[in-house]
Amino acid sequence: MTPYSQTGSFDSVDDMTTFAETCDVLTLENEFISSEVLKNTQQKSGSPIFPSPDSFALIENKLIEKQTFEKAGIPVTPYALVCTKEELKKFGDKHGWPYLLKSSKGGYDGYGNETVSSLEEAIEAFKNLGGAKGHDIVAEAFVDFTHELAVQVARNETGHVVYPCCETVQENHICVAVKSPAPVEESIQQKAQELAVTATEAIDGKGIFAYEFFLTPAGNLLLNESAPRPHNSGHYTIEGCITSQFENHVRAVMGLPLGSTELRKPAVAMINLLGTDERNAQVDSARNALAETDGHLHVYGKLDSRVGRKMSHFTLLGENMEQTYSRAQKVTDRIRI
Amino acid sequence: MTPYSQTGSFDSVDDMTTFAETCDVLTLENEFISSEVLKNTQQKSGSPIFPSPDSFALIENKLIEKQTFEKAGIPVTPYALVCTKEELKKFGDKHGWPYLLKSSKGGYDGYGNETVSSLEEAIEAFKNLGGAKGHDIVAEAFVDFTHELAVQVARNETGHVVYPCCETVQENHICVAVKSPAPVEESIQQKAQELAVTATEAIDGKGIFAYEFFLTPAGNLLLNESAPRPHNSGHYTIEGCITSQFENHVRAVMGLPLGSTELRKPAVAMINLLGTDERNAQVDSARNALAETDGHLHVYGKLDSRVGRKMSHFTLLGENMEQTYSRAQKVTDRIRI
Repeated sequence: MTPYSQTGSFDSVDDMTTFAETCDVLTLENEFISSEVLKNTQQKSGSPIFPSPDSFALIENKLIEKQTFEKAGIPVTPYALVCTKEELKKFGDKHGWPYLLKSSKGGYDGYGNETVSSLEEAIEAFKNLGGAKGHDIVAEAFVDFTHELAVQVARNETGHVVYPCCETVQENHICVAVKSPAPVEESIQQKAQELAVTATEAIDGKGIFAYEFFLTPAGNLLLNESAPRPHNSGHYTIEGCITSQFENHVRAVMGLPLGSTELRKPAVAMINLLGTDERNAQVDSARNALAETDGHLHVYGKLDSRVGRKMSHFTLLGENMEQTYSRAQKVTDRIRI
Repeated sequence: MTPYSQTGSFDSVDDMTTFAETCDVLTLENEFISSEVLKNTQQKSGSPIFPSPDSFALIENKLIEKQTFEKAGIPVTPYALVCTKEELKKFGDKHGWPYLLKSSKGGYDGYGNETVSSLEEAIEAFKNLGGAKGHDIVAEAFVDFTHELAVQVARNETGHVVYPCCETVQENHICVAVKSPAPVEESIQQKAQELAVTATEAIDGKGIFAYEFFLTPAGNLLLNESAPRPHNSGHYTIEGCITSQFENHVRAVMGLPLGSTELRKPAVAMINLLGTDERNAQVDSARNALAETDGHLHVYGKLDSRVGRKMSHFTLLGENMEQTYSRAQKVTDRIRI
């Protein structure tokens, strides 16, 4: 909580400018403000915004984002802009059913996405996602993969630093755990890191960025999503790395030298603790987690718990991934929040 | 900043009780509230206070504190309650001039202490420190020492944990640097840790406690001061240890299992950055410190800088103390705040 808060609308350039004029530099914790508003706010207030409005313009729209990364030579999941019933059908016929329909703006953790198994479902989803109202809808093929990987990059005018390639373990499109480093060959980890840096350069990103990749059975990496902010996949860096993603975010937007991303221990596991009930949030049965050496419990202080809502996470540092991950699961398995 | 702040006087049991009634548990960040007020507040509100009012009663008065620790078998610096001119003279004649006069309540970083070199100075200081108004004044002998050492202990009903024995480098009674572990024999480090635990048990301390020792040329340890709170000598634990003194403070007062105090690297050096001018605080020339791998700069956000005021600290983790300490000094030597 800061005494310097202001109340206003993210959609109002006037509100944003009044706020921005009180700041030396601005940054964002989500990507749901239009780049147009950001650009006008920056111009009128004279206060720089990082990531820049130009960077946001390249990634706020899933279609433009994919085109931008593709142009930079980064393999992405097969996709197409779909506007008509014919195109909905064509995409499924070409890349197989089911596939994904995504609203080109907004959406995370599976919201704003729909899986469609038939043309009928595709037509319905197209309408639900706002396609009938003129929103761009992007079709994305389901990709066979062995692992989902993530990499964070911090970058500013002093240079860039890249975090280890980690694995994000997903259930129902929600990340339930992270393993860093990812249990895949080192050459693949390095390739993912290189692609993440290339992607950041492609959008001239200044700040912290997270990239999620699919690793296919053939060993190829496909960029799936990007986020221009500290990301859940990087929460493990708070204790797991010498400099956390949050500190490097601040360093990046302030133009300061970036901090080391080195892991503090050979194996770092992070468990997302999701709500299991609709209730007032309270932490039950956390003693095992608290008693675990080099285990770190973060409770977010959200007031209401909902099934599947991210309420907390637990990070465990260790020498060996298999043991560390299984231990982290074990000491958190009774926690209810 | 919290939305739940209340304004009132630390000396008013009514104010304190109103506040305490809104809390599950209370703790303190300084030792300047009377144990009597704490006891009444705890009784009236029903909210537990840790460290307990009884613990505070044993250490808020330097005389009782020394007697308590002495009784527990802990060697302390030679001292005496002094009430008359004759006693002021006798202490100097017995333990040598100069010696220290301390007000039995309050005082830190050299405030509330006076060094006296003659009977005349002693009489003047006695008056200045409130001796004439009936405040207890304690005389303390100057002790020859090779190192000043510090140890932090966290303790609650689940047990206790003890931090490494560190060296505090002092200039003009102000700590300017900390080296952890202290560059002294391991048997001395262990002895200091044992004495710190004994001291915490002697006051039935629940919370985090810091103890400062003199190491004499003959290799003996003398307890000099104690603090019932997170202490400047333990700031290095934020990055230097698996669990910081602040987290273990919170764990201790909440009755939670205590976290590991293990060092993250073989050598941790902390440099206190003191104000060098009377001016509005601003951070100048900090880039070298920020660019140092595993260096961590903490700026306290105090608005006004004063000569000698603690404005910031820098912690550096490394493999070797000599190199780490000299590097920490080097990258911070130009910082002005």
